[in-house]
Amino acid sequence: MPADHPAFGSCPAPLVDDERIQLGHGSGGRLTQRLLEQLILPAFANPVLDRREDQAVLELPAVPGERLAFTTDSFVVSPLFFPGGDIGKLAVHGTINDLAMAGARPRWLSLAFILEEGLPLAILRRVVASIAEAAQACGVHIVTGDTKVVGNGQADQLFINTSGVGVVPPGLSLGAAAVRPGDAVLISGTLADHGLAVLAAREQLGIDSELHSDTAPLHELVHALLGSGVQLRCLRDPTRGGLAAALSEIAARAQVDFEIDETALPMHAPVRGACELLGLDPLLVANEGKLVAIVAPDDAERALGALRAHPLGRNSALIGHASHGGTGEIIIRTAIGGQRILELPLSDPLPRIC
Amino acid sequence: MPADHPAFGSCPAPLVDDERIQLGHGSGGRLTQRLLEQLILPAFANPVLDRREDQAVLELPAVPGERLAFTTDSFVVSPLFFPGGDIGKLAVHGTINDLAMAGARPRWLSLAFILEEGLPLAILRRVVASIAEAAQACGVHIVTGDTKVVGNGQADQLFINTSGVGVVPPGLSLGAAAVRPGDAVLISGTLADHGLAVLAAREQLGIDSELHSDTAPLHELVHALLGSGVQLRCLRDPTRGGLAAALSEIAARAQVDFEIDETALPMHAPVRGACELLGLDPLLVANEGKLVAIVAPDDAERALGALRAHPLGRNSALIGHASHGGTGEIIIRTAIGGQRILELPLSDPLPRIC
Repeated sequence: MPADHPAFGSCPAPLVDDERIQLGHGSGGRLTQRLLEQLILPAFANPVLDRREDQAVLELPAVPGERLAFTTDSFVVSPLFFPGGDIGKLAVHGTINDLAMAGARPRWLSLAFILEEGLPLAILRRVVASIAEAAQACGVHIVTGDTKVVGNGQADQLFINTSGVGVVPPGLSLGAAAVRPGDAVLISGTLADHGLAVLAAREQLGIDSELHSDTAPLHELVHALLGSGVQLRCLRDPTRGGLAAALSEIAARAQVDFEIDETALPMHAPVRGACELLGLDPLLVANEGKLVAIVAPDDAERALGALRAHPLGRNSALIGHASHGGTGEIIIRTAIGGQRILELPLSDPLPRIC
Repeated sequence: MPADHPAFGSCPAPLVDDERIQLGHGSGGRLTQRLLEQLILPAFANPVLDRREDQAVLELPAVPGERLAFTTDSFVVSPLFFPGGDIGKLAVHGTINDLAMAGARPRWLSLAFILEEGLPLAILRRVVASIAEAAQACGVHIVTGDTKVVGNGQADQLFINTSGVGVVPPGLSLGAAAVRPGDAVLISGTLADHGLAVLAAREQLGIDSELHSDTAPLHELVHALLGSGVQLRCLRDPTRGGLAAALSEIAARAQVDFEIDETALPMHAPVRGACELLGLDPLLVANEGKLVAIVAPDDAERALGALRAHPLGRNSALIGHASHGGTGEIIIRTAIGGQRILELPLSDPLPRIC
């Protein structure tokens, strides 16, 4: 038997970091086995994943009235690494946050890579380590996965899909449909950090030293808010399209308008400056570690207190309220006492932001 | 208000099929809304999806002892359409089949697109229709989704990720670890149809009129097999890497060898001919509508009967058995009475097959 054709079960040659992804790493052959066994699976070891079946089998929660939350998100951010985070952290936090916005406790994630032929293994290893670290920090397990490889020039380095399953407590029902005129609108911190950090890293604007992504998992902040006992109507994480897109979706669904006080919007000074310099509306820029909470009018102060008591919510602010109207408009009260209607643009100045 | 900047809630212009995907379709702005509301969401309408939240909330099954199955798969097949199927059908069937291999009843799918700028909307519409048709035929619901757009040249037309959640009946535990020496190996039909059909379509070999993908959902075939009461150890769908990769994974996990009778392998004549012509080993070629079932020795005939009684299993065959050995070898008994050790290749002659 020739040395380059070892039988099944023989020890595969160790991966070396100056290697690059080949089409064969996605073939289902021994290169695939080697990539999985040496680089990907060890980072996420847990009893479910280690069964190495094509699916995870998971014990259901036992509490009557609990429901499942299920979500999916693909990540195509460019560049892969930026101040404050990377595509791996985004992929974990983004899917956890989509679960958390239903009030769910995140439990299990899937992880699917699409890799471009020629990708340095060192980059993949760094992303895998970041995913593993983020998942561990959040107490979620990667329980199933997939890896595909496409030819050079048929993808841009690597794309990630994470899907997630979590458990929604009995009796909890959050959603845009529950929002009523008069409800208070809170934001859990500063706006536009993520989008500006990625833009600065991509375009090498030379202002990146002060701009950092806010990518963060929000499930514990949500847990704190739920624990405060406020009448919570709806949670959204204002990612692509920013706060404007999140409020627009809620307004259309709930048939309310929103009145937002521009002077109440928390922003880091460098982000505010960069937005002014670049002519970007911070309301349209993506965030990856913030939530919008809509609560009953009388609970606004208590909700604000609960958010501010958590490290990820210390810059929370009450920024406005829902109002009658039914045309789904977002009305901005400006610093000089005027008002303008915020228009969701056709497109967005910042593609591939998450 | 200028005509090209309608306020929220105004009726967006209808999509026209000779349009192409723009970066703005992934921006979170109004183009994204229009794509979702006019092209994607109507195809999959159901009460969970229609809530338009960032996650699906699902009622858990009520039977004690039931567990969840959870799986993910990305699809990058090229070309997108081929005789017998397309990327949409593959994406539904592939994830359903990964759930079915645990004996799970498939219930819910997520659907995530990565689209290349410039993709004709007509192609996306055709793929969406195919996904909807396949999901409906299988009785599963698309309950959550995501759509990203990357620049021209940063992906190849479109990639799909489907993740799936299903319900595993109480007491059922299938997996490679349960396989014992002596167990019978069955295949539910002809080998290599999918891989050859995609290869022929891609390379325009001029032999494609006789080659058709076998893409099919296997959950009902599995249900029939489970209903027959046989002692079922393990199920695998031999996709990437073919039957060889599936058996190799099981052999390594169960610490058995497999002895396979080459003359017992069912194949369509045109596929056999094409494999001979192209020098491809059909054991290494992908299938998308077949399963390998490993059953207790005494149950082989009964399992074969149950498989053959179902339309998707009518060409099922008993092809070999597990044996002592523990080196994880796949031993092929050849037509002329000899034997050879099947080696899983480093790579695979057919990239982007699923």
